[in-house]
Amino acid sequence: MDNVKSIGFIGLGVMGKSMAKNLMKKGFSVNAYTRTKSKAEDLIEEGCTWCESATEAAEKADVIITMLGFPSEVKEIYFGEEGLLNNAREGSILIDMSTSSPTLAKEIAEAADKHQMTALDAPVSGGDIGAREARLTIMVGGNEEAYNKALPVFQAMGTNVVLQGGPGMGQYTKMVNQIAIATNMIGVSEAISYADKAGLNPNLVLKSIGGGAAGSWSLSNLAPRMIAGDYEPGFYIKHFVKDMTIALESAEELGLDTPGLKLAKGMYEELVTRGFEDAGTQALIKLYVDQA
Amino acid sequence: MDNVKSIGFIGLGVMGKSMAKNLMKKGFSVNAYTRTKSKAEDLIEEGCTWCESATEAAEKADVIITMLGFPSEVKEIYFGEEGLLNNAREGSILIDMSTSSPTLAKEIAEAADKHQMTALDAPVSGGDIGAREARLTIMVGGNEEAYNKALPVFQAMGTNVVLQGGPGMGQYTKMVNQIAIATNMIGVSEAISYADKAGLNPNLVLKSIGGGAAGSWSLSNLAPRMIAGDYEPGFYIKHFVKDMTIALESAEELGLDTPGLKLAKGMYEELVTRGFEDAGTQALIKLYVDQA
Repeated sequence: MDNVKSIGFIGLGVMGKSMAKNLMKKGFSVNAYTRTKSKAEDLIEEGCTWCESATEAAEKADVIITMLGFPSEVKEIYFGEEGLLNNAREGSILIDMSTSSPTLAKEIAEAADKHQMTALDAPVSGGDIGAREARLTIMVGGNEEAYNKALPVFQAMGTNVVLQGGPGMGQYTKMVNQIAIATNMIGVSEAISYADKAGLNPNLVLKSIGGGAAGSWSLSNLAPRMIAGDYEPGFYIKHFVKDMTIALESAEELGLDTPGLKLAKGMYEELVTRGFEDAGTQALIKLYVDQA
Repeated sequence: MDNVKSIGFIGLGVMGKSMAKNLMKKGFSVNAYTRTKSKAEDLIEEGCTWCESATEAAEKADVIITMLGFPSEVKEIYFGEEGLLNNAREGSILIDMSTSSPTLAKEIAEAADKHQMTALDAPVSGGDIGAREARLTIMVGGNEEAYNKALPVFQAMGTNVVLQGGPGMGQYTKMVNQIAIATNMIGVSEAISYADKAGLNPNLVLKSIGGGAAGSWSLSNLAPRMIAGDYEPGFYIKHFVKDMTIALESAEELGLDTPGLKLAKGMYEELVTRGFEDAGTQALIKLYVDQA
């Protein structure tokens, strides 16, 4: 295969759309499909080729990127009758950039081999701002040769691109990321609610503790929102619960007991029960504020 | 009271000794007492005045600093018959820089008032390196006038000095710090042990996740030691358990349920049971590594 020129892009949510735009900016031709065509309108205006199905997007492309919500959707778009494995060209590189199950990523890679394709798993972090500014972290698993071919594609969307190992290793790395975040969110919430109960000025407390051993991205970026009562989503609780569900299943498959992750998942599920699924993850503080 | 010239310093452990040295460097005369005189030998060589008791150290000083291990020791040194409240000069400023109970700090401040003294609580973070390099964070609670008088003393030992409020507020702030650390240590340990179980190279994973939303001081500084199997103490598990015990009691007094802190405290107590009390806090990873 020569240099990648044509990309199929499936899934144009907040993240996917920004990523597709950045690919177009770098000169890739983008064949886009998403379930709700209206979501693609501005992308079509900017010159992408609209496709009526995932199959059509796949047929025209050297590299096919999927950016979907749930593992069940990933499974359908790869393994379904109308799916990529049955319809993409031989030699295609299929890249799932959704946050999805490591085990499913391995299954896709295996199936792709049988269809003379190559699959990479390449979930991202950096949020909507990282996607817009082409500053995503991209954690890649899969075949090294395919990774090298796809590297200019990744570099059009992100700044920190690392091949973490073979199939599934990108998804495993993303799970490591989510596991580290999950329990720390509890610590940040307990710290801020304790400060509040003690009669401290929590913002002044951050001046004392933010730069030291208690410091974290969440403490710097989300604690001020907790203090301000600002629950606008940077990262949705419903998506975090999905990720923690995958992470916990995966940890169990690996024979690892993770009490912190279990606690965090249970607390966030409680927030969903209370109607906070569309709030940002910093709304965890609600469970503490509303204890009294 | 004029400018502070003479300081009584009680408690010359790893932290206390470095702090006393920095006070001497800045021209304060230091009257030192600690239970084991041999610990003070190099300080005596450098020109501190050795005192045979806490009382003697207190009698000569404008400001008396205590840097002790446990709240029980703090209680004895302040309230005991030979203690500071019964023996320091009227007008003295008593500063407890130990990490201790916020409630005890309030009791000391109240008792000091009755003795025509002023007490400040001023615990620190920054560890042995921060103490040595006079770069401690100092979280102060108490009377503002006394704080202002003592400020040159604090500035001889630390760079981030903040008056957090009235009596006890320094200790409350330190507890906020420890609470934030406690649960994050679980997240870091679970992240690293999951990475390891998944067959990832954990150091390479840190390259992907260290600078983003999963990032924290503990992930940057302690995860590499976990990965290397290096359990040398930066901060002793036995001291962390002491701090979490104070924090949990304090949270309960405030009517706040802190499941993350409870989980962390239980896990660290399990490590003590397994003989790791003198290891660094990063040894929490042992509970995960040794699951199999």
